Amino acid sequence: MKTNNSILFILLFILLKGNAQDLNSTLYLMPWPKEIKETSSKFNIDRNISISISGNNQDRVHNASINFLRRLSNRTGIFLNQGFPLVDNAAANIKIIFDKNADLSIEDDESYTLNVYQNNILLNAITDIGAIRGLETLLQLTNFNENGYYFEGVSIKDSPRFVWRGLMIDVARHFQPIEVLKRNLDAMASVKMNVFHWHLTDDQGFRVESKIYPKLHKIGGDGLYYTQEQIKDIVNYASNLGIRVIPEFDVPGHATAILAAYPEFGSVDGAKYSVERNSGVFDPTLNPIKDETYTFLENLFSEMAPLFPDEYFHIGGDENEGKHWNENEDIQVFKKEHGLKTNHDLQTYFNIKLERILNKLGKKLMGWDEIMTPNMPTTAVIHSWRGEKEGFPKGGTLIDATKNGYSTVLSAGFYIDRMLSVEHHYTSEPIGDVKLTKEERARILGGEATMWSELVTPFTIDSRIWPRTAAIAERLWSKKEVNNIENMKYRLKEVSFRLEELGMTHIKNSDVILRGMTNNQDISSLKILRNICEPLKIYSRNKGGTEYQTYSPFTLFADACINDAEDAVMFNTEVIKYLNAPNKKSLDILLSHLNIWNKNHNAFSQIKDNPNVKILEELSKNLSEVSQILIPTFSNKKISRDTFTSLQENIKILSKPFSDTELAILNSLNKLVEYSKTNYLVN
Amino acid sequence: MKTNNSILFILLFILLKGNAQDLNSTLYLMPWPKEIKETSSKFNIDRNISISISGNNQDRVHNASINFLRRLSNRTGIFLNQGFPLVDNAAANIKIIFDKNADLSIEDDESYTLNVYQNNILLNAITDIGAIRGLETLLQLTNFNENGYYFEGVSIKDSPRFVWRGLMIDVARHFQPIEVLKRNLDAMASVKMNVFHWHLTDDQGFRVESKIYPKLHKIGGDGLYYTQEQIKDIVNYASNLGIRVIPEFDVPGHATAILAAYPEFGSVDGAKYSVERNSGVFDPTLNPIKDETYTFLENLFSEMAPLFPDEYFHIGGDENEGKHWNENEDIQVFKKEHGLKTNHDLQTYFNIKLERILNKLGKKLMGWDEIMTPNMPTTAVIHSWRGEKEGFPKGGTLIDATKNGYSTVLSAGFYIDRMLSVEHHYTSEPIGDVKLTKEERARILGGEATMWSELVTPFTIDSRIWPRTAAIAERLWSKKEVNNIENMKYRLKEVSFRLEELGMTHIKNSDVILRGMTNNQDISSLKILRNICEPLKIYSRNKGGTEYQTYSPFTLFADACINDAEDAVMFNTEVIKYLNAPNKKSLDILLSHLNIWNKNHNAFSQIKDNPNVKILEELSKNLSEVSQILIPTFSNKKISRDTFTSLQENIKILSKPFSDTELAILNSLNKLVEYSKTNYLVN
Repeated sequence: MKTNNSILFILLFILLKGNAQDLNSTLYLMPWPKEIKETSSKFNIDRNISISISGNNQDRVHNASINFLRRLSNRTGIFLNQGFPLVDNAAANIKIIFDKNADLSIEDDESYTLNVYQNNILLNAITDIGAIRGLETLLQLTNFNENGYYFEGVSIKDSPRFVWRGLMIDVARHFQPIEVLKRNLDAMASVKMNVFHWHLTDDQGFRVESKIYPKLHKIGGDGLYYTQEQIKDIVNYASNLGIRVIPEFDVPGHATAILAAYPEFGSVDGAKYSVERNSGVFDPTLNPIKDETYTFLENLFSEMAPLFPDEYFHIGGDENEGKHWNENEDIQVFKKEHGLKTNHDLQTYFNIKLERILNKLGKKLMGWDEIMTPNMPTTAVIHSWRGEKEGFPKGGTLIDATKNGYSTVLSAGFYIDRMLSVEHHYTSEPIGDVKLTKEERARILGGEATMWSELVTPFTIDSRIWPRTAAIAERLWSKKEVNNIENMKYRLKEVSFRLEELGMTHIKNSDVILRGMTNNQDISSLKILRNICEPLKIYSRNKGGTEYQTYSPFTLFADACINDAEDAVMFNTEVIKYLNAPNKKSLDILLSHLNIWNKNHNAFSQIKDNPNVKILEELSKNLSEVSQILIPTFSNKKISRDTFTSLQENIKILSKPFSDTELAILNSLNKLVEYSKTNYLVN
Repeated sequence: MKTNNSILFILLFILLKGNAQDLNSTLYLMPWPKEIKETSSKFNIDRNISISISGNNQDRVHNASINFLRRLSNRTGIFLNQGFPLVDNAAANIKIIFDKNADLSIEDDESYTLNVYQNNILLNAITDIGAIRGLETLLQLTNFNENGYYFEGVSIKDSPRFVWRGLMIDVARHFQPIEVLKRNLDAMASVKMNVFHWHLTDDQGFRVESKIYPKLHKIGGDGLYYTQEQIKDIVNYASNLGIRVIPEFDVPGHATAILAAYPEFGSVDGAKYSVERNSGVFDPTLNPIKDETYTFLENLFSEMAPLFPDEYFHIGGDENEGKHWNENEDIQVFKKEHGLKTNHDLQTYFNIKLERILNKLGKKLMGWDEIMTPNMPTTAVIHSWRGEKEGFPKGGTLIDATKNGYSTVLSAGFYIDRMLSVEHHYTSEPIGDVKLTKEERARILGGEATMWSELVTPFTIDSRIWPRTAAIAERLWSKKEVNNIENMKYRLKEVSFRLEELGMTHIKNSDVILRGMTNNQDISSLKILRNICEPLKIYSRNKGGTEYQTYSPFTLFADACINDAEDAVMFNTEVIKYLNAPNKKSLDILLSHLNIWNKNHNAFSQIKDNPNVKILEELSKNLSEVSQILIPTFSNKKISRDTFTSLQENIKILSKPFSDTELAILNSLNKLVEYSKTNYLVN
C-alpha cells in the first residue's frame, strides 16, 4: 500500500494546487459559505478556550456548544479547563450571540456571521439554529502546524440557498435502529442539512408503535419498530440540531405491511396479505371506496400527528399501479358513479380526502410526484422524484409542479441508493437556467437525498449515505456557482474523514466485512480489489427485486465496496491525462498501479479458500494478467499480436460483474488496450 | 506488515499445534463445554438450513433463532430460503426442544445437549435459556473448507460451573448510551454470561430518570441519563438473551451526584455540592442519622425496584472513608448514643435500615465487601472486590465472606479497567485449593468483570472489555481444569474476531483514533508502534484522578492501544525462546521485528507534525536506534563498548511512558541488552 499512498499524496498535491486557484482557498469548508474573506490572523487553540452564549432559551446552543467542545477536544487532544459553555461571560474567547429561537419551520432564518480574530471569535446569528450552523463552520476551520492547532482567520457571512435540505431514510425495507438515525442526524447537522424525512412504512414493514392499531407494528413487519417514546426521542434529538422531522406513511400503495395487519382495508376482499420480504412494486393497495379506510387513516394520523410536530406530513402516494383496484368490481362501479376515469383520478379522490384529514390536524400534505394531477389542490407539496431518467424533460417534475403552483422538493438526481458517482449528484442543479418568477422560485423549497434501504443494513447504510450526501448538502446550501467538481472532491475527502470522527461507520466497517469474508485472514489483497471495484449501479444489483430478501446477507464483497472507488478514481484520472498527452510522470503512476495489481494475485492466492473469496478469483487472476501484459507494453511501447489477443480475452472476462460489483477501471483498461492496439501493436 | 503477518502465521501454527494436543481439539469454543466428543460427521451449511422450535412460550428462543440465522447468513454469505424459525416442524434440519421458560434467577438451569450429525442437528435443554446457550455453541462450531461452510460434528453436554457470570459497566463516570449496552449484552450472551450489573450512580452522575426526585437526573450529572422506558428496554433486551440485570445505586458514599441534586441529605449541613468531574474517592456522603435520608431512599428504591425485576439490588457501600461524618458533631453524638464505635458500625446501621427497605420491596441487598461487618445479617450478598493486592490473604474477602455465611460474588482479579494481561484474569481462580463444605461452595455464586469508566468512552469501552472478558466468562463457566493459557489465547483470537462480527468496535475503532491523531495521514507507522505499546496499568494513567476530567479527550495514542499488544506478545515469546536456546529460527523472527522497528522511524517522520504525533517521536526514534544496534549485534554476535553505551542510553529513554503508554517489549529489549553484554561485548 506504500506506493499507493505516495501516488495519493502526489495526486492530492496536484488537485490541491489546481483547485486552490479555483476557489482561492485551501479551506475544507462544506457547504461552502455565501461570503468568505480569509485573513492572516489565526486563533490558537489551547486549554483556555471557552464559550459564552448570549440569547434567550439557550438549550439548543448550549447543547451544540458542549458537542463543539467535546469534538474539538477529541480532535486536538487538548485538555480543556472549561468543559461546559458559560452564560454571558465577558472573559470567554468564543462569543455566541443570537436573538431568538427558531420555530423549526421553513420560515426559519439560518444565517450567521462568523469572525475569527487572533484573540477571540465572534459568532452572531438571528436564531439559535443560525448559531449552531455557524459552530459547525468554526469546527471545519480547525487546522494545525508544527506549533499546534488553530482556527483559520476568516470573516464569513453565510445563509442557505434553499430552505429545505433533507435526507430521507427508508426504515421499512431494513429497519434502522435509533443510534443509526442519531449518528446520521449528527452528520446531517455537520453539513448544515435541516430536514430528516423518515420513510416509516412500506410493503416490508410498518415501523411505528400504534396504540390504537397495535397489529400494525406487531404483525406488519419483522418485530422491529420504534416505540412512541423513541419517536419523541428522535424528534427531540433532531430539534436540538435544528433539523425538522417529516414522517412518511406511504399510502395507498406500498401498503402490504398495513394490510398484513388489517386486511379489511385492502382492495381485495377476503385476501390474506403477507409482509413483503422482497423488493419491488407490489399490488396490495388500500381500498379507497370504503369509509372504514378513511376512519382508519384518520384515527391513525390523529395518533401519529402529535408525535411529529412539523407542519408537513408525507403520505407517499407513489407507484400505485392500481392492479388490485382494476380487479375489484365495486371499485370499478364506484369510479363510474363518481366520474373518476382513471386510477389516477381515483387516487386523487383518495388524496383529497387525506388532505382534509391532515388539514384538520394542522398538517400540510406532501406526496411523491404521482399525486400531482389536475384536480389536486396546490396546497399539497410535490416531492419530485422523477426526472430525465424516467422520461421527463430536463428539470423533471420539479419545474412542472412549481409552474403549476405547487411547492416542491427535489429528489430526482439525489437518489443515493443508485450508487452513482458523487459527480452525478453534485451536478444535479435543481433550477439550472430555467426562468422562474419570484413566486415560482420561492415555491422551490429545496431537495432531499433519498436512502432507500432494499440493499443496506444498519452496518452498511453509512457507507451508502456518506460522504456523497455532503456534496448534495452543498448543492442545496451554497450558491449555484460553487460547482467546481475537483475542488468539491478535494474538500469531500476531508469531510469524509471528519464524518468518521463524528461517529459515522462508512470507512471502518468496510474492513470488517473483508475480515468476515476471509474469516480473519490477511485482507490486504482484498483491499486492493475493493479500491477498484464498485457495487452494481441503478438497481442492477438485485434484479427484479427477488435476488435479495430483507433477511439476505449484506456482508458480501459488494457491501465492502463503495461508489467512487478510491484507486479507480486516481487511475482513471491518470489514464485520461496520459492518453491526452503521454508523459513520463503519468506513465510512472500508471505503471505503479499496474504493478500492484500484477503482484496482488499472489497475495490473494494465499487466502484459504471459501466461497465468498473464491468468487473473486477470476477477477484477481485476470486483473493480474492484464497488468502483467500492460506493464511491458507501455514500458517498451510494443506488443505482439498473440499477447494482444490474450489481453483482449482477459479484459473480456473482467467486464463481467464479480460478486455484484463492477470493475471501475474497466473503461480505462479498454482505453489502454485501444491505445496499445493503435500505437504499439507489432505484427 | 507483510513480514509481520508471516510471523504471526508461523506463531499461530506453532501455538495451534502445541495446544491442539492439550485439549485434543482445534475447535474455537469459548467457554469450553463441560463434556465434548468430536465426531467425523460434518453438517454442511447451505440455503436449506431451517430451525424448528418445540417448547412453550418460545419468545426467547424464537428471538435467539432469528439472530442465529442472521449471523449465520452474514458469516457465510449464504442466502437462506427460510429467514425465520418454524414451530414444531419435522422437516427442519435444526431442531430445538426445551421444557420450560427460565425464571431469570440464580436457580435457572442453563444446561443443554447439542448433537451435530451429518444431516441434522439436535439441541435439547430444560429451559429456554439453556437452548439459547446451546445456539451460541452451535454458531461457534462454524468452519469452512474449499467446498464451503459446515458445522463441526460433535456431541456436547454442557452446563456452567457458577450460576453468576457477570459484567459490571459503570455508566456514571462516562455515560454509556443504550446501543453500547445492547451490543455488550449481545457479546456477553455470545460467551454465555448471564448477569449485567449496571453501576448507575456515582459521584460523577446519577443516570436514571426519577419522576419523584427529578433533580437526580437533571442536576446530578451532565444531562445524560436513561429514561425509565429505556431502562425497561434494556432489561427486556437482556431478558431475551437470558441475562439478569442488577442495578447498583451506590450509597452512602460515591454520592456526590445525589447530593448535588439534594444537598439536604448530605452529612455537611448547608453544603453546596457540585457533580464531580474528576476521578477518585470523594467525601460527600449521605447523612445516616436523618430520617429524611431513609424516606428519600425508600421512595427512590420503591420507584426503581419495579424497573428492575431481578431479586438482587446492589447498594454499593464501598469506599466511604467517613470524613464528612467525622466533621459532623450531630453524627458524632448519634454514634455515641447508639453505641456505634466506628464509622463502619455506623455504616452497618445504615445498611441494615436499607436491607429492611429492600426486603419490603422483595429485594435482596447486595454490596461491595466493605458492608461485611460483624453485625451485618448474612442475608446480604457480599460482592468481593478486594484481594491480595489490597492486603487481603489469597482468596481475598470472597472466602472469608463465604465462611462467614454470606453468599458471594467475586470481582477481585476481574478488574478489567486495570488494563492487565488476559492471563491475569484467566488465572484468577475463585476457589483454588480452598476446602469448602458443600454449603459454603454453594454460596459462592460466581464472579463479575468490572468495567469502571473513568478512562473509557462509548468509543473505546469495547476495547477495554473485549476480548479479555471472554476469558473471564470461561473461567466462570468451564471446569477449573480448563486452564491452559496458550490454548485459551489461541481460541481468544478467534473469539475476538467473532465479537467484531457481532458488532463490537474493539478492533475497528483503534485505527479511527490513529487517523484522528494524524488528521487522516498515513497511519501505518503508528500502527506498528501501537502494536507494541500498552496503556499504563493499574491506575498509573490518571494519577490521583486529577489529570483526566470526565470531559477530557480519550482519543489519544493510549486509547488506541490495548493490553496484550499483539506484536509485543509475539516478540516477547520469541525472546524467551531464543534466550533459553539460541536458534536460527527464533533469531530470524526477532531480526524481522527489529528490522520493521528500525525502518519505522523513517515512515513516522513523514507524518506532518502535530502535538499528538510529536509526543511519540522520541519513542519512535529511540526504538529505531535500539533496533539498528541490536540487528548487527545479534547477526554478527559482537558489539563494541561505545555502541553498547549508546544502546543503554537509548533503552533508558524507552523506559519512560509516552503519551500514557508503556513499551510492552521493554523487558525483552533489556534481556537482549543483558545477553549481548554477557556474550557479545567486545572491548
